Amino acid sequence: MPRKTVIIGGGAAGLGSAGGVKAADPGADVVVYTEYEDVAYSPCGIPYVHGGEIPDFERLFLAGKQAYVDAGIDVRYETTVTAIDTAAHTVTVEGEGTVRYDQLIVATGWNYADPGVSGGDLEGLYYVKNIRKAMEWDKVIGETKRAVVVEAGPLGLEMVTALAHRGVETHLIDPNPYALAMMADPDIMAPVEDSWRELGVHLHFNTTLEEFVGEGGRVRAVRTSTGELPADLVVISTHKTPNNALAEAAGIKVGSTGGLIVDERMKTSAPDVWAAGDAVEIPHGLTRTPLQGLTGSHAYAQGKTAGTNAGGGERAYRAVYVPWGTPAGKWVIGGASFGEATATALGIPYVLGVAEGISRARYYPGVQKIKVKLLAEPGSLRLIGAQMIGGGEGIKERADFLAQAIRFGMTFHDLSTMENVYSPAIGALNEPIVVAATNGLAEAKKKG
Amino acid sequence: MPRKTVIIGGGAAGLGSAGGVKAADPGADVVVYTEYEDVAYSPCGIPYVHGGEIPDFERLFLAGKQAYVDAGIDVRYETTVTAIDTAAHTVTVEGEGTVRYDQLIVATGWNYADPGVSGGDLEGLYYVKNIRKAMEWDKVIGETKRAVVVEAGPLGLEMVTALAHRGVETHLIDPNPYALAMMADPDIMAPVEDSWRELGVHLHFNTTLEEFVGEGGRVRAVRTSTGELPADLVVISTHKTPNNALAEAAGIKVGSTGGLIVDERMKTSAPDVWAAGDAVEIPHGLTRTPLQGLTGSHAYAQGKTAGTNAGGGERAYRAVYVPWGTPAGKWVIGGASFGEATATALGIPYVLGVAEGISRARYYPGVQKIKVKLLAEPGSLRLIGAQMIGGGEGIKERADFLAQAIRFGMTFHDLSTMENVYSPAIGALNEPIVVAATNGLAEAKKKG
Repeated sequence: MPRKTVIIGGGAAGLGSAGGVKAADPGADVVVYTEYEDVAYSPCGIPYVHGGEIPDFERLFLAGKQAYVDAGIDVRYETTVTAIDTAAHTVTVEGEGTVRYDQLIVATGWNYADPGVSGGDLEGLYYVKNIRKAMEWDKVIGETKRAVVVEAGPLGLEMVTALAHRGVETHLIDPNPYALAMMADPDIMAPVEDSWRELGVHLHFNTTLEEFVGEGGRVRAVRTSTGELPADLVVISTHKTPNNALAEAAGIKVGSTGGLIVDERMKTSAPDVWAAGDAVEIPHGLTRTPLQGLTGSHAYAQGKTAGTNAGGGERAYRAVYVPWGTPAGKWVIGGASFGEATATALGIPYVLGVAEGISRARYYPGVQKIKVKLLAEPGSLRLIGAQMIGGGEGIKERADFLAQAIRFGMTFHDLSTMENVYSPAIGALNEPIVVAATNGLAEAKKKG
Repeated sequence: MPRKTVIIGGGAAGLGSAGGVKAADPGADVVVYTEYEDVAYSPCGIPYVHGGEIPDFERLFLAGKQAYVDAGIDVRYETTVTAIDTAAHTVTVEGEGTVRYDQLIVATGWNYADPGVSGGDLEGLYYVKNIRKAMEWDKVIGETKRAVVVEAGPLGLEMVTALAHRGVETHLIDPNPYALAMMADPDIMAPVEDSWRELGVHLHFNTTLEEFVGEGGRVRAVRTSTGELPADLVVISTHKTPNNALAEAAGIKVGSTGGLIVDERMKTSAPDVWAAGDAVEIPHGLTRTPLQGLTGSHAYAQGKTAGTNAGGGERAYRAVYVPWGTPAGKWVIGGASFGEATATALGIPYVLGVAEGISRARYYPGVQKIKVKLLAEPGSLRLIGAQMIGGGEGIKERADFLAQAIRFGMTFHDLSTMENVYSPAIGALNEPIVVAATNGLAEAKKKG
């Protein structure tokens, strides 16, 4: 009899898991339960459809439902799992009753943190997540005059730009002194904030949410610590929290972030239960601090790992160095590991190397500025973090590289002597990373 | 009395050297001799002015002559050095006589290899190199109906595209079966060749040059092993050879490529004589094979190293892994170390990992294809080479990264598990390098 694997969740982690199981054990019986009507679309594209960069939601779908049928993966749509019994190796499924599993993979994802103020049940509050809802909300955006975005996290950034592009008078409120403060440095974000102001966005920092103010069941304003802001639409982009109620009720261990604790093979504390994606926490490669709420790419890779191991294969998921990048206003920002703000908050000492460089030869049409900040451990001068802002060219690829540079212990010396492509149309004589590392060496020398 | 450093050559290596000396020893007396009227322009930009991508030659100048005066660097223009006496520590300079040095830096650069056929003294043969000549030849190109480009090396590639963009009927002849055969793999070049054909370029491979055919002192055709090609203009892009007559006459040791032999500090065999740039040979980081004729970026970095050491400082120039990249037809190609063709020619065994990926999310406007080929050492699966072709996005940055990956001994396992940025506008869920490495692991497994 084939081994039965049950997967809870149809996002990147769940589907990555399903593929992993099938690759390791083609005969396995794989069932995926999802509460939603769809799987295999790219939720990350939603803000760009709202912003008009992508013409329609249909393009975000990656594969039709038949593709999963063909792959032998049994996806049960709009089906909720209500309980896990790890001792009995069963889950309780609405409409199906008790379902036995040999292996269980928890890929229940994330929710937005509860804003924790009154008025949360008013109409007009939009949490960007599900594609069907996004299609409906897109029409609402088309009729919106004034919107408030609550918190400048990664999704908040994208929605601020999207709403501004759609001609909506957009207000951002955030309790921190600048945008994306949990990840990025203030000097990286300052040009982004300027570009939002150019688009007519109103920025309200050091401002906390106090109430969603309604009228006839619909939101009409947001009350904040610095005053009331009228709004037809409120986009709530509070931080991601792991959606772990089901696993916690089953006694599966969670860590300090609320994410499920997993080992390198994505195994949880319970027998034959694996987990992946935003439901878990993963150690940072340098600090070993648990991180939760990474990207779809991480979720997918973790799913593959969990699935491979659940299917009887062998695959390790290593600690993360977190390359990241995103458009922000008219710029693209990115980095790896952490920046100055986080290093300072964690009490991690560092030497800084900064450079303002260019993406092509100075004289080649389309050349863009790029600022690179590198952080190294004092003494060894090993890279520990990086942040960048630029016109867009090469930010993603440099972030990928810098994450690997951190993983492999490259130092300012190594990066200062690295070779680089020089060809006027695609790269400058001096690679900005090389210049930043060289400046970092001088900085280290100055500090003795 | 300040120490006197004489530098022969005003290109990237020569000026990099001058800066290196001044940084290490600000009081040094630094004299640069150049045969040309200018220094500090970007010769690499010339084909792009010819092609119309860059509007004028003036933009290629990096700094005025005053910048060198201000930096305390004494540049002697249009001045030829005719001899070196390493025992006496002197050089003979036209118009100056015998000039003493404490330290000498040879940065005499390269020449095109002599095509070695008759008719080489006809008018209408263009060797792309000097900017003043380029300004004159640009007018000639404007009046040219039919051109032949001799050899599809890096400069030949750029000139073929440039001439086609200018509406010239362009013929390429090359003795190899495909373009850029000394560096690139045939499957990387096939789409480039197709894109040239779309531009109307006529490609003549497996074709050797036999004679420049003249009439009244001007070229009117090129005779080849496969027939005669009429031409008003011939662009000669034979391979680079080191311009070392002066150094060889002085008894300074040259290696198997004809390049000067230098140690890690860029020191030649002669006392107090250093060398940098296209005049030297540098070992390949993996094979230790000497390489000659690298890029302006290499020349500049080598110059900095030679100058720093000549000035009493300490700086090493390491073996090279040669990231490279260039526009080619409508594509951008690039890589690091070597590809399949070179590995095969050198008898180096390899396991291949290939992927056809994308530069952004599949549904994001502007998404480009990118093909990545990775070569690893069988057994260890350490990366030893890479080649790529794509629309342009991220080729340069990936080449830089892959050269460092080779230098640091990263394996298919390491690259297969590397994290990558996922953000629809700037990066796909699956980084093509990761997919190529993963496919390489499967390939290695299949081969046992």
